[in-house]
Amino acid sequence: MAIVKNVKPRELFIGKLSYGSDLLEEITNVCLEKNIQLGRVEALGAVQRARLGFYNQHTHEYQFFVLDEPLEITKLMGNVSLKEGKPLVHAHITLADNTGNAYGGHLVPGTVVFACEFILEALDGPILKRDFDEATGLHLWSMPE
Amino acid sequence: MAIVKNVKPRELFIGKLSYGSDLLEEITNVCLEKNIQLGRVEALGAVQRARLGFYNQHTHEYQFFVLDEPLEITKLMGNVSLKEGKPLVHAHITLADNTGNAYGGHLVPGTVVFACEFILEALDGPILKRDFDEATGLHLWSMPE
Amino acid sequence: MAIVKNVKPRELFIGKLSYGSDLLEEITNVCLEKNIQLGRVEALGAVQRARLGFYNQHTHEYQFFVLDEPLEITKLMGNVSLKEGKPLVHAHITLADNTGNAYGGHLVPGTVVFACEFILEALDGPILKRDFDEATGLHLWSMPE
Repeated sequence: MAIVKNVKPRELFIGKLSYGSDLLEEITNVCLEKNIQLGRVEALGAVQRARLGFYNQHTHEYQFFVLDEPLEITKLMGNVSLKEGKPLVHAHITLADNTGNAYGGHLVPGTVVFACEFILEALDGPILKRDFDEATGLHLWSMPE
Repeated sequence: MAIVKNVKPRELFIGKLSYGSDLLEEITNVCLEKNIQLGRVEALGAVQRARLGFYNQHTHEYQFFVLDEPLEITKLMGNVSLKEGKPLVHAHITLADNTGNAYGGHLVPGTVVFACEFILEALDGPILKRDFDEATGLHLWSMPE
Repeated sequence: MAIVKNVKPRELFIGKLSYGSDLLEEITNVCLEKNIQLGRVEALGAVQRARLGFYNQHTHEYQFFVLDEPLEITKLMGNVSLKEGKPLVHAHITLADNTGNAYGGHLVPGTVVFACEFILEALDGPILKRDFDEATGLHLWSMPE
């Protein structure tokens, strides 16, 4: 089943992140500065190293791992909603190494930017709050039908 | 050569799919319910298992395979157009396992949602119908220049 | 740190590329024909072969490699800005082979289309020009704060 809400485009931003910055933290900072509570983001570029998460669907815990080498960002895709009253950027990333092999996962702090170009879209619509979900153990959007 | 048509944004939706639902079928259902005949969709999340296709460019047949393990959806990207009068969601997906290795392909029914957050944009524009294309054996958009 | 600029959607295009065309060159041609100097593009489909780049962060040189087999495009994501007065499409791509293994990198000429469906959005906003960046050796957007 799907639960779906109407939203409207509000504002569109284009930007870059500086060398050495933390990929997830910097995108989150832009959302805080621009007061974005609902939105989506996409990015490409390269990282000096990546720290990612994989959610264990059986134990209901994230497993974190580091890819400690330079990698291209072939795609970052994320959305913005609220968790405990603050904008939370939920982003997944796909990366590639120097032979073209691809990697990916749930983006967490610790991923260091080499260069990054992003587009961030602020949306107007219902407040989407992340609440604990029994079936998955994740904090998913609370969306009354 | 490229054939290009102008389209306009019509309506924007944000939503989630429930645990255990079929990823492609549920997105298709939303398009049917919202009467979306032209559009684009993107999603992230995780699946319990994935069923994907690879198009054999020599035999002109899809080869299907199952990745029978929990995987992160690092990116789903798709478009919506018409095939035989009904909305068809053409989506490709990138996934990642618990070591960060990435996989991907053409999304088909049989991919089971663990959690999924999507953004779906309905577009106004020319009706794009999928018709048989001799060169590829695929059903591609019929777009008179 | 992030540098961020406001942009506005101007025009939206949907299209397909013909069998045998060069993926990056054809998207670039559409930008030239439609006079797009700022924008974003996304695509899916399949290629007959791919030629990709990986940027060596230590030597500051691109390394190029060919994946000489049919591959699904699970995602192409790119932006459009100006380099030396002309529209430059900066695109990264994720691909998958017949067993579902994923590959990716910086898209360069030499990637041959089997079939490709794309969405291209023209944006209005500040002119983003690519200038040499000392820290990375790349041509990054010149964005005065």
